Amino acid sequence: MQFIDGGVTAPKGFTANGMLCKIKESSTKNDLALIFSEKLCNAAGVFTQNKVKAESVKLTKENIANGKAQAVIANSGNANACTGEQGAKVARKMASLAADVLGINSGDVIVYSTGVIGKQLPVEKIEKNIQSLKDGLSKEGHKEARTAIMTTDTHYKECAVQTVIGGKTVRIGAMAKGSGMIHINMGTMLSVMTTDCAISSQMLENALRKSVAGTYNCVSIDGDTSTNDSLTILANGMAGNDEITCEGEDFEIFYEALNAINTQMAKKIAGDGEGATKLIECNVSGAKDVETARGLAKAVISSSLAKAAIFGSDANFGRFLCAMGYSGFDFSPEKTSITFESAENSMRTGATDFIGEQKGKRTSLKVFENGVPLDFDEALAKKVLQEAEIKINIECKDGTACGTAWGCDLTYEYVKINGDYRT
Amino acid sequence: MQFIDGGVTAPKGFTANGMLCKIKESSTKNDLALIFSEKLCNAAGVFTQNKVKAESVKLTKENIANGKAQAVIANSGNANACTGEQGAKVARKMASLAADVLGINSGDVIVYSTGVIGKQLPVEKIEKNIQSLKDGLSKEGHKEARTAIMTTDTHYKECAVQTVIGGKTVRIGAMAKGSGMIHINMGTMLSVMTTDCAISSQMLENALRKSVAGTYNCVSIDGDTSTNDSLTILANGMAGNDEITCEGEDFEIFYEALNAINTQMAKKIAGDGEGATKLIECNVSGAKDVETARGLAKAVISSSLAKAAIFGSDANFGRFLCAMGYSGFDFSPEKTSITFESAENSMRTGATDFIGEQKGKRTSLKVFENGVPLDFDEALAKKVLQEAEIKINIECKDGTACGTAWGCDLTYEYVKINGDYRT
Repeated sequence: MQFIDGGVTAPKGFTANGMLCKIKESSTKNDLALIFSEKLCNAAGVFTQNKVKAESVKLTKENIANGKAQAVIANSGNANACTGEQGAKVARKMASLAADVLGINSGDVIVYSTGVIGKQLPVEKIEKNIQSLKDGLSKEGHKEARTAIMTTDTHYKECAVQTVIGGKTVRIGAMAKGSGMIHINMGTMLSVMTTDCAISSQMLENALRKSVAGTYNCVSIDGDTSTNDSLTILANGMAGNDEITCEGEDFEIFYEALNAINTQMAKKIAGDGEGATKLIECNVSGAKDVETARGLAKAVISSSLAKAAIFGSDANFGRFLCAMGYSGFDFSPEKTSITFESAENSMRTGATDFIGEQKGKRTSLKVFENGVPLDFDEALAKKVLQEAEIKINIECKDGTACGTAWGCDLTYEYVKINGDYRT
Repeated sequence: MQFIDGGVTAPKGFTANGMLCKIKESSTKNDLALIFSEKLCNAAGVFTQNKVKAESVKLTKENIANGKAQAVIANSGNANACTGEQGAKVARKMASLAADVLGINSGDVIVYSTGVIGKQLPVEKIEKNIQSLKDGLSKEGHKEARTAIMTTDTHYKECAVQTVIGGKTVRIGAMAKGSGMIHINMGTMLSVMTTDCAISSQMLENALRKSVAGTYNCVSIDGDTSTNDSLTILANGMAGNDEITCEGEDFEIFYEALNAINTQMAKKIAGDGEGATKLIECNVSGAKDVETARGLAKAVISSSLAKAAIFGSDANFGRFLCAMGYSGFDFSPEKTSITFESAENSMRTGATDFIGEQKGKRTSLKVFENGVPLDFDEALAKKVLQEAEIKINIECKDGTACGTAWGCDLTYEYVKINGDYRT
């Protein structure tokens, strides 16, 4: 398995495009995207567990229920959530506009929306632009599509891999947005995955659900689970492998590739949290089961106090223990140890952030051992915590299970971004 | 029932004192407090549900288990949490130091600690100062004690009421600290209540548990449930009323007075959250039961995004609906309405913040009705949201139950305070 370029258009048969149509009047960047497969795809999706669901999410769940889809239309600038009957009509209109220009069924269109909640979406702007959006579909178009779904994101997030299944080269691509209102529960803010692998929609869904639990669902930026979280995957089968319809070696290879993408995307979303200056990775080991390990790790990276401490490069590990204590998951404080770890020059470099190996010397510093604070070097701790990617390694000695969660620091910039998002 | 001056020393037979003993070397304000009743008291307490409990909390739970107590020793500057066996010794030493100078049993001493987690508490500083702390006990001493438990609080929090039970005047007083790591679950950061009412420890505990559920436990500053939350009440019986040992009219009067204090203290803690510029009160009505109403209200005031929006005076009510949606509590988005309300000149004026009636004209503005966003006046919304006390009134139409929760906005200052608490 290897990482390749190309995002959602890396797999055979997929094209994409994006453009600015000013869903939000003040917008100056792309805000409408279209992704198209020349063949009808098997499809699966996972969606927000928020009781309040965007109209786009409701429609997409309906459209994908038969395990088939062929296109994705996505907008930023308006979430089409809490918009009542009119919002439902707008979501259906978006699907039929895309279907008409593509010459496909509107029931095979996935609709994504992201942006402000509780405002009606000006669908006439999409109507005016849909033909030129369609006319611009291309292999290079992933570059236009990936920015069209961004809101407060500072980097686009895309990723693609290829692997070999049954002698055939198979590719999987993805693009996502993140940033704010991220405390993922069953999908992500918005993520589209594509693959040319031949695989049944049931096996696609199995792979997605298993992978999401340890990747997207282990990310928290601010504890707010969005109304719009959606992750869907379209498989057009054009790689020519024998269709994967059950567990086995082929499924394992596909799963490994899919999970590698999802892990990278989870880190990209966490590292580009609203206002974030640092990616925080919390690794819990020695927990009694995987759910506990992930739950404890997620509590740590979700704590406002822990996040603010990391922002200030303050080795205030007591806040991690406090968060673990109220998480509702079981552990023994008196057997717990905590180590900080970072690598020199773990710089954030544009959209390729946090992929691959870190450069520079790794430093680790134990601050708490078997329930007792250690008399550590605070100057060294400060240095370790000033890097852009911080690992918090927590050893529990209650069992053998491990889990990882990703988050970011809490900064002035987060407050600024969310204190006046509309203006 | 009426509000009176005097805090914890308002009831008969109670004296208090506070002083600076530099638990944290850099401290310049009082950090050690003592409260004493000349008679042994019936006592009850509620404590943090965090699995990680401070050593002071563990000892206090043990000491109060017999329903009796006579004194409280409290320090700020160090939480004595995650400090292992040495921390347990320190807590016991604090109790015995207080007991020795007061001439009482160390098992009748309540110990409170608050401050940084995971550092050993320098108990020798308490030992050096305990005699002069005791010598200064007085009726006026509540003024020294109330500041000694503050950490990042900008105002002290105290309150007292008097009422008449069985022909006798009965008083209840309280002091508390709040500010950060506040997402109360079963007590508050630190709160001491005193009363001269004659009441059994069982009935004290009943009153406390019932009141806490709708007051302290409905406050959130940052979603972090502290390791040190403790609320205890000491009743010395010196008012001379017939002891309250069962439900009935006397208990109701006592409960009403106790609950009035707890409501005020909850608002004081929320309004003085770390970095807060505004008190947010969320009132949910028409819910199917009280637990649901409180759960929905607490989700709204706990959301980082909702809090940041209020900081920016942004009427982004979609974030409230989003928070209600992931709260785990039931409601029907399509039947929900939301109104903002504030009063002109709802100024924060020192320690008496938010007590009594607001001055100025009340303005209310409906922004969402029966699941549909209204086309409201954004300039007026901005004006309403610029006041220092904001009410968010949410109508559910699922039943008749009501619930209220209190919180504060998320500001640059919160990040600053917690990004480098130690320095």
